[in-house]
Amino acid sequence: MKFQNVKGTADYFGDEAFLRNNILDDIKEVFEKYGFLPLETPVLETFELLSIKDVGEQIKSQIYNFKDFGGRHIGLRFDLTLPLARFVANNPNLQLPFKRYQIGKVWRYEDVKKNRLREFYQADIDVVGSDSIEADVEVVACGLEALEKLGIKNFVLRLNNIKVMNSFFRKINLANKSLEILRILDKLDKIGKENVKKELRKIGVDEEKIFDFIENKKIYDISELDGSKEIFDFLDLSKIYGFDKKIKIDFSLARGLEYYTGNIFEVSVEEEKFSIAGGGRYDNLIGKVGKRNLPAVGFSIGVERVFNLLKSEYKKEQKIVFVANIKKEQKIDAIRIVLKLRENGIKTEYDLKNRDLKSQLEYANNKKIPFVILVGKEEIEKGIFRLKDMKKREEILFNSFGDLINFLKRDE
Amino acid sequence: MKFQNVKGTADYFGDEAFLRNNILDDIKEVFEKYGFLPLETPVLETFELLSIKDVGEQIKSQIYNFKDFGGRHIGLRFDLTLPLARFVANNPNLQLPFKRYQIGKVWRYEDVKKNRLREFYQADIDVVGSDSIEADVEVVACGLEALEKLGIKNFVLRLNNIKVMNSFFRKINLANKSLEILRILDKLDKIGKENVKKELRKIGVDEEKIFDFIENKKIYDISELDGSKEIFDFLDLSKIYGFDKKIKIDFSLARGLEYYTGNIFEVSVEEEKFSIAGGGRYDNLIGKVGKRNLPAVGFSIGVERVFNLLKSEYKKEQKIVFVANIKKEQKIDAIRIVLKLRENGIKTEYDLKNRDLKSQLEYANNKKIPFVILVGKEEIEKGIFRLKDMKKREEILFNSFGDLINFLKRDE
Repeated sequence: MKFQNVKGTADYFGDEAFLRNNILDDIKEVFEKYGFLPLETPVLETFELLSIKDVGEQIKSQIYNFKDFGGRHIGLRFDLTLPLARFVANNPNLQLPFKRYQIGKVWRYEDVKKNRLREFYQADIDVVGSDSIEADVEVVACGLEALEKLGIKNFVLRLNNIKVMNSFFRKINLANKSLEILRILDKLDKIGKENVKKELRKIGVDEEKIFDFIENKKIYDISELDGSKEIFDFLDLSKIYGFDKKIKIDFSLARGLEYYTGNIFEVSVEEEKFSIAGGGRYDNLIGKVGKRNLPAVGFSIGVERVFNLLKSEYKKEQKIVFVANIKKEQKIDAIRIVLKLRENGIKTEYDLKNRDLKSQLEYANNKKIPFVILVGKEEIEKGIFRLKDMKKREEILFNSFGDLINFLKRDE
Repeated sequence: MKFQNVKGTADYFGDEAFLRNNILDDIKEVFEKYGFLPLETPVLETFELLSIKDVGEQIKSQIYNFKDFGGRHIGLRFDLTLPLARFVANNPNLQLPFKRYQIGKVWRYEDVKKNRLREFYQADIDVVGSDSIEADVEVVACGLEALEKLGIKNFVLRLNNIKVMNSFFRKINLANKSLEILRILDKLDKIGKENVKKELRKIGVDEEKIFDFIENKKIYDISELDGSKEIFDFLDLSKIYGFDKKIKIDFSLARGLEYYTGNIFEVSVEEEKFSIAGGGRYDNLIGKVGKRNLPAVGFSIGVERVFNLLKSEYKKEQKIVFVANIKKEQKIDAIRIVLKLRENGIKTEYDLKNRDLKSQLEYANNKKIPFVILVGKEEIEKGIFRLKDMKKREEILFNSFGDLINFLKRDE
């Protein structure tokens, strides 16, 4: 190979590209059903925006950034939330609550040795301008319905609350270390329990106290902790929505981004051990980006993981017809049939390489095209249509174009 | 504003974002009807690929490029053709001819003073591996049908051929200056006839000889020139396809990219004076990127210009229902109705901010939501549904949920 892909990026073609498009379309449909409107923001943002406080040091170190020809420091977005915050800040007359969805690529300089992509899709919904629990439940319900529409059923929604955690840390006199502790807990899935305990000890924290709590070894009355009402209200309303059975309260959950302020959630598929979606409430971020502060809550689907999860199950056939000319003399007639089929909305190809019939059939066969129409002298003279079913290896004759169309459309 | 958009980029929300999505979906549908398959390549490419010879100096100077954290020199794609060439080079077992479409953003450091975007969409189809005229006609026919599907009808397809031009330059003993002359002619639309003549004089070319030819003042027998058969064959086949009336042979057409080798085309809308699509045959590019050379021809729709052209005509209404609770006590009942409407596939919203009825109606009104369902004590007790048509300012009562659904679905 002369030119390779940039590390951490990939090409997708044909069936795989179709699968990806279909998944994004399905997600979009559910997002719109919940009344979220599309927002499209640029890939390029000022580095000043991308690197504001509250984003978290780890992500900051992964931002693709550079000076443009005009000397401006810009970067590629690493999520869809900061662009949303900028959009809200710059458009003070938006109707509130502002409900938007955005599906698009984001970039992070991830470790490719761990098979991570550096350019990948996210699909986000957010409600800006409401601090009600209904907003929390709406984004989660909508996100979960999107996953269900894609056929993902056996998932768990882990639920935690940043206020509850901070309140607990205060209670055990570790308020000043709460951010550090949450950062360490966030690595639980990646580095495992023992390493997390080690790191907690390193910063002078009694790791057993923490683990007693997050593993529910001692029964704390969490209703005494700030923020517990947000969890209880979420649980109550989720019953009305009907997804309460999916929820697992998990005090070890500590999402990577440091701007969360209330309920946080993460969806994982049981057997896979990785999260495929997540989000939470972030009531202070908008104010950091703009002049007025607005509460907000969001949910994001990790589309690349969903792609991988569904890839193996996807074997949909392309409904496409190839019109083959038996001899060179029938080429123009073949093209006329192609044009008529397309007029009737049927996906149609013909030979663009002046090949003989054998090579045309090989091409159709290799491309797994299910139907070939054979156009020869006899067919033209008699006004009939000879269709070859490539899978069943049989031919069907149609006496009129209408019959052919009916057959091809019925088969859809 | 604290944080601004990066210069040359823009946000799109709501109706405008819907319009853009619908346009891209329509284009995709036509591309697939012609048997083109989707290819998705990354935004990031190696700078080595992006800056290969044949791309043209002007575009090279517009490539966003930088060193990543690993010291690799990478850039943002400025078109979808080079990534295609790389994909073909890296996948030697592709079925030929390879027909792919790609719709995605590209980046160029354009002059923002001329209202140009630096981040914009392109929608491309290409046939790789065929040197037949059928491939030229297929990409053009498909591209034109996409434009027609969008409602753009009054366009002209300008057609020229690089071989014809070079053959003419040879005839008038200017073979050694052909690339320079084409570069200058390419500026015709931008800087005007007089300036082009001036520039031609500057490189020592008799500008009248050139303009006699490109303005058809002298009738040259172009059938003597190399490449003229490609024009004639294109015209012949376009008659079968039925778009011959749209074609205007134009020897002043000289597309910006220097890798074209045969027929080139550009679509302009009569009253607008700018091109909205174009393409051409490039038989040497694939060989420069990979080991084996393959002929290729492509067509690209300048989607941003199409967006602008259609923007003013787009006033489609969002079909969405808002379920309002008259008093706080009816909130849960309102939510239950929301969930049932969504189950029936109806886009539905409710109040996420605990507002009184007046504020809920204001919200629905400002968002131009056409239907509001009013949920009060009476409605719940009687099991009826009160629908407010926000446009007609009238209320309709439904005695059952089924009647309500039927009404909302009939209205679609």
